[in-house]
Amino acid sequence: MKAFNSIYRSVNSVCSRQGDRASALARCGFCGSATSNSKFQPDFGLLFDIDGVLVRGKTPIPAAKRAFQKLVDASGQFIVPVVFVTNAGNCLRQKKADQLSHILGVPISQDQVMMSHSPLRMFSKYHDKCVLVSGQGPVLDIAKNLGFMNVVTIDMLRETFPLLDMVDHNRRPRLPSSPIVNLPKVEAVILFGEPIRWETNLQLIVDVLLTNGSLGSSYINSTANHLPLLACNMDLMWMAEAPSPRFGHGTFLVCLEHIYKKVTGMELKYEALMGKPSELTYHFAEYLIREQAAERGWRAPIRSLYAIGDNLMTDIYGANLYNRYLEERASSSTKAVAKAAAVAGAGGAGGTGLRASPSTTTTTGTTTTTSSSSTTGTTSARVSQEVDCGWESELAAPSATSCKSILVCTGVYNPRTEIPPDAGHATIKETVFHGHRDFRFDPGLVEPGHIVQDVEDAVELIFQQEKMLGTPV
Amino acid sequence: MKAFNSIYRSVNSVCSRQGDRASALARCGFCGSATSNSKFQPDFGLLFDIDGVLVRGKTPIPAAKRAFQKLVDASGQFIVPVVFVTNAGNCLRQKKADQLSHILGVPISQDQVMMSHSPLRMFSKYHDKCVLVSGQGPVLDIAKNLGFMNVVTIDMLRETFPLLDMVDHNRRPRLPSSPIVNLPKVEAVILFGEPIRWETNLQLIVDVLLTNGSLGSSYINSTANHLPLLACNMDLMWMAEAPSPRFGHGTFLVCLEHIYKKVTGMELKYEALMGKPSELTYHFAEYLIREQAAERGWRAPIRSLYAIGDNLMTDIYGANLYNRYLEERASSSTKAVAKAAAVAGAGGAGGTGLRASPSTTTTTGTTTTTSSSSTTGTTSARVSQEVDCGWESELAAPSATSCKSILVCTGVYNPRTEIPPDAGHATIKETVFHGHRDFRFDPGLVEPGHIVQDVEDAVELIFQQEKMLGTPV
Repeated sequence: MKAFNSIYRSVNSVCSRQGDRASALARCGFCGSATSNSKFQPDFGLLFDIDGVLVRGKTPIPAAKRAFQKLVDASGQFIVPVVFVTNAGNCLRQKKADQLSHILGVPISQDQVMMSHSPLRMFSKYHDKCVLVSGQGPVLDIAKNLGFMNVVTIDMLRETFPLLDMVDHNRRPRLPSSPIVNLPKVEAVILFGEPIRWETNLQLIVDVLLTNGSLGSSYINSTANHLPLLACNMDLMWMAEAPSPRFGHGTFLVCLEHIYKKVTGMELKYEALMGKPSELTYHFAEYLIREQAAERGWRAPIRSLYAIGDNLMTDIYGANLYNRYLEERASSSTKAVAKAAAVAGAGGAGGTGLRASPSTTTTTGTTTTTSSSSTTGTTSARVSQEVDCGWESELAAPSATSCKSILVCTGVYNPRTEIPPDAGHATIKETVFHGHRDFRFDPGLVEPGHIVQDVEDAVELIFQQEKMLGTPV
Repeated sequence: MKAFNSIYRSVNSVCSRQGDRASALARCGFCGSATSNSKFQPDFGLLFDIDGVLVRGKTPIPAAKRAFQKLVDASGQFIVPVVFVTNAGNCLRQKKADQLSHILGVPISQDQVMMSHSPLRMFSKYHDKCVLVSGQGPVLDIAKNLGFMNVVTIDMLRETFPLLDMVDHNRRPRLPSSPIVNLPKVEAVILFGEPIRWETNLQLIVDVLLTNGSLGSSYINSTANHLPLLACNMDLMWMAEAPSPRFGHGTFLVCLEHIYKKVTGMELKYEALMGKPSELTYHFAEYLIREQAAERGWRAPIRSLYAIGDNLMTDIYGANLYNRYLEERASSSTKAVAKAAAVAGAGGAGGTGLRASPSTTTTTGTTTTTSSSSTTGTTSARVSQEVDCGWESELAAPSATSCKSILVCTGVYNPRTEIPPDAGHATIKETVFHGHRDFRFDPGLVEPGHIVQDVEDAVELIFQQEKMLGTPV
C-alpha cells in the first residue's frame, strides 16, 4: 500500500501529459483558486463522499472548503468533473446540492449529486406496481421522482391497520377496529434509508413480507420466496459530530435480516442492493462524470476516476470493486465478456442482473450465509447483464480504465484505532467485517490506494498524481 | 403427548385423594362459582400466563372470565392458590393486578402477580450501582421499587449527550453542544422490556457498552468484557388483537445482539436473563404460591404446579424446564445435589449463578454460539448455586415435585399452522426456534403436557386431573 502522508507542495511541476496540459493551470495569488485556459482537457474525474469527508453531521470539515477552492477557477467553475456520491437517501438531490453549495462555497448542481436510491430509476418493472417505501424525509416525493406511481408508506399502513403496530403502548388503538380504507396489495418493498421508530417499520415490513403484501391476513405458511425487496444505502455506520460512528441504514438492515431469520428460519433476500459499494453506483457516477465533461466541452475521454471517502467498507471497497471490474474489462476481449454474460445469464442471477442475495451472486463475510460464487468473481458477468437488462447505452460504455480509492481520516476511519490491511497482513478480520451481509470480505477490496489526513490532502495528492500544478506554499 | 380435546363434563366425580377432599366443593347453581368447606386443603397451585391466555391486547378472552368463576368461591376467594406469571414488565404489579381484577371479575392482589423483572430484587450487588434502564412506562419507579438507588434512563442520556442519537433527523441537535450535566459512569445495563424508538435505545446501549459506561468517550478498543447486562422478558413475540403475533422484547434483544456482534465481532453476554422460561421465574412463582397457601391457612404442602400458557418457547419450555429440575431434585439425594453444585461452582458459571451467557451455562439453538454444556444439563447445579448466592430461604426449598404445562390455542400458538412436536417426531425445527439465543432448542421442553382450546378448558382439565368436581352441564 502506498501511504501518502507528506503533502505535495511543489509549485514548479507543470502538467505535460497528453501535450495539452502544459501551462494549463495557474493559481490566483489572492484566493488560491485555479485559473484555466481553454486548452485544458481533464481526463479524470473525482467522486466525493460527503459525510466524514466534507461534513460531520451538520458541521463542515474545514479542509473541505479549502479543497474545493483548488477545484474551481476564478469564475467558480470546476476545472475537473466532480460528482458527490452519497449513500444518504432521505432527501431530494436539489436539497443536497444546495447544502453542499453552502458548505463548500462553490455552486453545486443537482446533476453532480448521486444519492443511493438514484439507480431505482432503472427498475422500471416496479414503477407501476404498488410499492411500500421505508425511510424518513420526503419518501413519497423521492419515490415519485424516481418513477414510482403507486406508493404506500409505513404511516399509511399504520393508519389502515392500527392493530399491527403495538410496541409503543401510547400509540396502541384504544378500541379494537377494522381497516377502513382498502389499500392495494403491496407488491414490492423499497428501503430508502434508516427510518424513525424502527420497531414500527421492522414490524410492518416483516408483516408485509409474511402476508405476501396483504396486511389484513394471517402470516402465510410458505416464506421461501417473499416479495421483492430493494434496499438503498448499506452503510452500517457513519460519522457525525459524536466521537464514535453513528448507526446508519445498514444497522437497520442488520435488524431486519436477523428478525426475519429468527421468525421464519429463512434468509431475507434482496432483489437489489444499491448505494456504495455496489458497482451499479459507480457505473452511474461515471456516467454523471462523462455527462459533466461533455457539457463543458471537454472531449478527452475520462480515463481515471478518484474516489475519496472515509469508510473502508463502502467508499474504499466500492471504488476497488469498480476498479477491479474496469481492469478485468480492459484486459478482456469483447468476446470474452459476452461469453461470461451468457454463462451468468444461464446461471440464475436475478432478472435485473443486480440481485445480491446470498443464494445468487454474493457471499457474506460473517455468519449467516454461504455461497459458492463471490462478488468479485462475477463482476464482469454481472455488469454485462446490467447492460443486457435495460441500462442506458451511456452507462453501458465506461471509458475509465481505473478507479483509485483515497481514504481520509476525518470520518469513520480512525487511524489511531485501526490499522488498515495490506496485501501481506490482513488486520481487519472477517469477524469485524462492517460491510453488508451480501458482500464478501476481501482484504484486497478494503485496502485503500492512499491514506491522507483530509480531503484537501486528497486533492493535492490527485493533482500530484495527475501532474497538475500544486498549491502555492 | 397426551392431547386433551374432549372437555371433562362429569358432575359426579368427587375428590377423594388425601381424604379431605370428599365433598370439598360444590357449585352454586346460579353463577357456577365454587363453594368450599373449611376442610379443603389444595396441594396444587396454578400459574397463569396473561397475554394470549386471558387477554389479547386489551380485549378479554371470553373463556377467561368463565374459568375464573370456577376458581373462586361464592365470596370471591380463590379455592386454590393462583399466581399470574407474565413476561410483561413495563408497569407496576399493582396496576397489572387492577387490570386483571377488572378483566376477570374477581379480586386479584398484587401479591399474585409476578412480572419478568421481579427477580431483580435478588440482585442486590447492583442496587447501589449506577444502572442504565431501558424500557417504556414507569421504568424509574419500577427500578426504584426493585431496590435500585442510582438509576439513569435512556432519555437522561439523550439529554446529556445530544450528539449521540442521530437517526431521527428532526431530533438531531441544531447546534453542536457539549454535555452540561455530568452523569455518573454507568456500571450496569438493565433491559426491562421493549422500549419505543428502538434506534435510540439500540444506539445508546451499544454506546454505553463500547465506552465502558463513559458515554462522552470514544469506543474502547477491547470489547471482550463489556459492562454487566441484565435482561427481563425474552418473548420474541406475543399475541394481541392482530391476526399474527406482535414483536416483543425478545425481538429487541435479537436486534441488540446482532448489532453488537456486527460492530464488534464479539458475542453480547448477559449477566442474567429473567422471565419465562428461566427457572428463576418458576422458583419465584412457586414461592408466591406457597405464601398464598400459608396466608389462607392451607397447610397441605404444594405438590403440583400447573402452568397455563400460549407460547411454546416461554410458557411450555419454562414449565417443562422447571419440571425437569423438580424431578431431578426429587430423584437425587441431597449429597448428589451438593456435589453437582460444587462441580459447577468450580466450572466458572457467573457469581450470581444466574448467568445465561453463551460462554457459560447455555447453548443456542440457532447460529450464533457454541457451548459444551446445556441448560438442562446444569439444572441442579444452577439452582443450588442460586441457593448459595443469597436466595431467600423460602425460595431455596421447593415443595412441588412436578410442574405440568398446558398449552392454550387462544394466543401465539396456532394449531392450524403448527404441529406440536412429540417425542418421536420433532416438527419444530431448530431453524425456527423462537426461544432466546441462550436457551437450547430441546424438543422435550417444547412438548406441552396438554393442549386445550382455551383457559376454561385448562381449568376443567386440572379439576379432572386433581379429581375435583367438574362444572355442571
